[in-house]
Amino acid sequence: MNQKTSIPKGTRDFGPVPMMRRNYLFDTIRSVFQLFGYLPIETPAMETLETLMGKYGEEGDKLVFKILNSGDFAGGIKMDLLEQLIQVPENSAIVSRTLGNQISEKALRYDLTVPFARFVVQHKDEITFPFKRYQIQPVWRADRPQKGRYREFYQCDVDVIGSDSLLNEAELFKIIDDVFNQLGLNILIKFNNRKILAGLAEATGLGDNLTDFTVTLDKLDKIGLEQVKQEWLLKGFPTESIEMLIPVIGSAGSTFEKIVSLKTLLQGSATGMKGIEEVETLLKIISAFNLHSKIELDLTLARGLNYYTGAIIEVKSLDVQIGSICGGGRYDDLTGIFGMPGVSGVGVSFGADRIYDVLDQVNGFPSLAQTGTQVLFLNFGPDESATCQPIADQMRLAGIRCEIYPDGCKIKKQLQYADQSKIPLVVMIGENERIAGQAVLKFMSSGEQVNVAFSDLTKEVMKTI
Amino acid sequence: MNQKTSIPKGTRDFGPVPMMRRNYLFDTIRSVFQLFGYLPIETPAMETLETLMGKYGEEGDKLVFKILNSGDFAGGIKMDLLEQLIQVPENSAIVSRTLGNQISEKALRYDLTVPFARFVVQHKDEITFPFKRYQIQPVWRADRPQKGRYREFYQCDVDVIGSDSLLNEAELFKIIDDVFNQLGLNILIKFNNRKILAGLAEATGLGDNLTDFTVTLDKLDKIGLEQVKQEWLLKGFPTESIEMLIPVIGSAGSTFEKIVSLKTLLQGSATGMKGIEEVETLLKIISAFNLHSKIELDLTLARGLNYYTGAIIEVKSLDVQIGSICGGGRYDDLTGIFGMPGVSGVGVSFGADRIYDVLDQVNGFPSLAQTGTQVLFLNFGPDESATCQPIADQMRLAGIRCEIYPDGCKIKKQLQYADQSKIPLVVMIGENERIAGQAVLKFMSSGEQVNVAFSDLTKEVMKTI
Repeated sequence: MNQKTSIPKGTRDFGPVPMMRRNYLFDTIRSVFQLFGYLPIETPAMETLETLMGKYGEEGDKLVFKILNSGDFAGGIKMDLLEQLIQVPENSAIVSRTLGNQISEKALRYDLTVPFARFVVQHKDEITFPFKRYQIQPVWRADRPQKGRYREFYQCDVDVIGSDSLLNEAELFKIIDDVFNQLGLNILIKFNNRKILAGLAEATGLGDNLTDFTVTLDKLDKIGLEQVKQEWLLKGFPTESIEMLIPVIGSAGSTFEKIVSLKTLLQGSATGMKGIEEVETLLKIISAFNLHSKIELDLTLARGLNYYTGAIIEVKSLDVQIGSICGGGRYDDLTGIFGMPGVSGVGVSFGADRIYDVLDQVNGFPSLAQTGTQVLFLNFGPDESATCQPIADQMRLAGIRCEIYPDGCKIKKQLQYADQSKIPLVVMIGENERIAGQAVLKFMSSGEQVNVAFSDLTKEVMKTI
Repeated sequence: MNQKTSIPKGTRDFGPVPMMRRNYLFDTIRSVFQLFGYLPIETPAMETLETLMGKYGEEGDKLVFKILNSGDFAGGIKMDLLEQLIQVPENSAIVSRTLGNQISEKALRYDLTVPFARFVVQHKDEITFPFKRYQIQPVWRADRPQKGRYREFYQCDVDVIGSDSLLNEAELFKIIDDVFNQLGLNILIKFNNRKILAGLAEATGLGDNLTDFTVTLDKLDKIGLEQVKQEWLLKGFPTESIEMLIPVIGSAGSTFEKIVSLKTLLQGSATGMKGIEEVETLLKIISAFNLHSKIELDLTLARGLNYYTGAIIEVKSLDVQIGSICGGGRYDDLTGIFGMPGVSGVGVSFGADRIYDVLDQVNGFPSLAQTGTQVLFLNFGPDESATCQPIADQMRLAGIRCEIYPDGCKIKKQLQYADQSKIPLVVMIGENERIAGQAVLKFMSSGEQVNVAFSDLTKEVMKTI
């Protein structure tokens, strides 16, 4: 019977302390979303294969967790496939792809974007546009697990669709700023505009190579300017194009200086000039916001270029060296894949796991977010614990998390429980205290003890938490 | 491209209003759990097949959603099984059972109890006992969907393990009472004790037939006393046994009267007398609690008898005719299945979907739990909306959920948005208002409008929400 206990690789259990910290993080993010008028939605963990497949590219599709049909799924297998498998067993990997679709018709969601698009199309008649929604739910990917990468993790997405006003982009900057300010983290908000990237390709004669251009550009951070140059040369970009790009791309100038040099370079590109105009409008709106965070135009930022059509946003931690902790942008055709074209939207996704790691490394979780029970009543026996009940009730009315130790066992053991559970306050009401109507309040960190009348206990505890 | 959008049968999308209501429900339950010192945990959506299978009986096992192994899963299929399927395709249902285990090694959790037991065993060295935990997560079952029964639904479990004190049972009564009192629902808490049931079987000479005895007894509610009698006779129970049971079982007396007659009947059964003692102790502790809810000893209550060993608890709504909305009990061996025997615990599970339905039917959701954005600032153009930004910021600091309409489109359309989104308050700052520093505050329900100085807006709004 002594079964080994384990969980699937890449998944995690969350015990009380990580859970309280995670709840603090999610509650902070959620409360900011709500204050800006975003509304919650939730979609099922499972979607149909039809909804999910073909949306994440060939590599992405392989990472979708399929759910085996219930009951007699083997009855759905085509005979010729079985024969193929028996005759050429070394081709089982190829057979698996076809077989998977014969024995499975649903899968776990891979992200929140495709389910959101599906939701919008399916419920378009009930939705009031512009639709501001947030969604905080786990997603599943059959990725190779490694440090910081899990097979089950939460995404926190916030999007507004059905409006192409740049006020929406500006508001997202404010939301990002508010979230990280409330969390006490220092960040840099980097942004770019897809139209500027397209303009750069166009103005330098690389119009047809936009993807090649940006895929390399996106690596600048990691490989440096010289390597970027080499990659472009290898890709066959004309030297003149590269010479035009380098001063702008490599510029260490301010956002303002970058815009000035862009204006010269992109003069001939209508798309590029539109991108600059968008950036300038956005900056004008944001200038009234008094943001705590630094913001910076980063012309190398591309993030899934094929998806974004306007603003591109990415947040870096200034406290800890880690990948981006939030990102997103403007897209023009969220729901086209489900036959509802022309729905423009803009949104960002907060990387909960990475933000958790940053908070952890800078000791950024407030102590209240890591405290479960605040007051433990020791149990000196049935009469004494009965005396504690109405007092505990009073405390709970005041919002204090408290508990009465359930067993009348050795006091040492009960204090040990308080200590191990990191409960900061202990109330002791023995026989004498019960008769006198005075409890002993013990501060676990200092060991200090004070006598407090029953009627003053709640007030006294409130002072210290 | 016009793809039909749908979700797997038995699953649900939750739009903003149901989500806000659900959050209200979960937040209420969660906050009560926390006030009593229960701590949150979460386990992965997927568990290994080894953890889940064989824990829910043959029927339950069939309802577990298995996840197809990623990649070359077909390579794991045994050749003889393939040949069997080709030779006797009509046996595909039987083959499916074996095949499932060759191409799947993990599955979606079916309840929160087995994952909790697995969690406790796996983390026993980190856990401080008694361990008070709550867990609110979805579970998945391949049940036939029908009204009120879904393939994805939430469970809200609260348990304390590692203590056999009856204070724990009493506290659960208080928690149940607090939750439903806060939700404004009227309930009846029914309870029983497995030891009393065992005692009844023993004292009436049915000792070996405890399961048969209680399976029928459990139906009393539905089929009535006469039918229960008939079923017992059919099962071959001696007439004398039945004659002894009927007066006790069928008693419409008070809890006190039931205990009196039990004491006579169970005199000869040590187990039975222990059960009565437990009930009396429990009632004594609870009597100090001033519960709002009615409580009642129901000797026909059995609920998964093979699992419970002491108290059995079930909650019925007094507002709406519906199945039990919360239930649980004491168990003596939660973790034995994973090789850690002797861990006693007691807990209850709140049926979120049913409680939601009850609240819905009695119009029990407070209006604040159904309001998203509280204030909409109309957008009269870039300068006006820029004026709104710092005012909106002030409101958010005061906890007011507000938004600025993103587009400077027709005012009629913007008001329509407020109306359809059920936003109760609208702030209008046109050019004149901007210059005068006075906004127009419009109450959407009455249509009333008042002029309010910018600096007083937050205060004015706070008065009305």
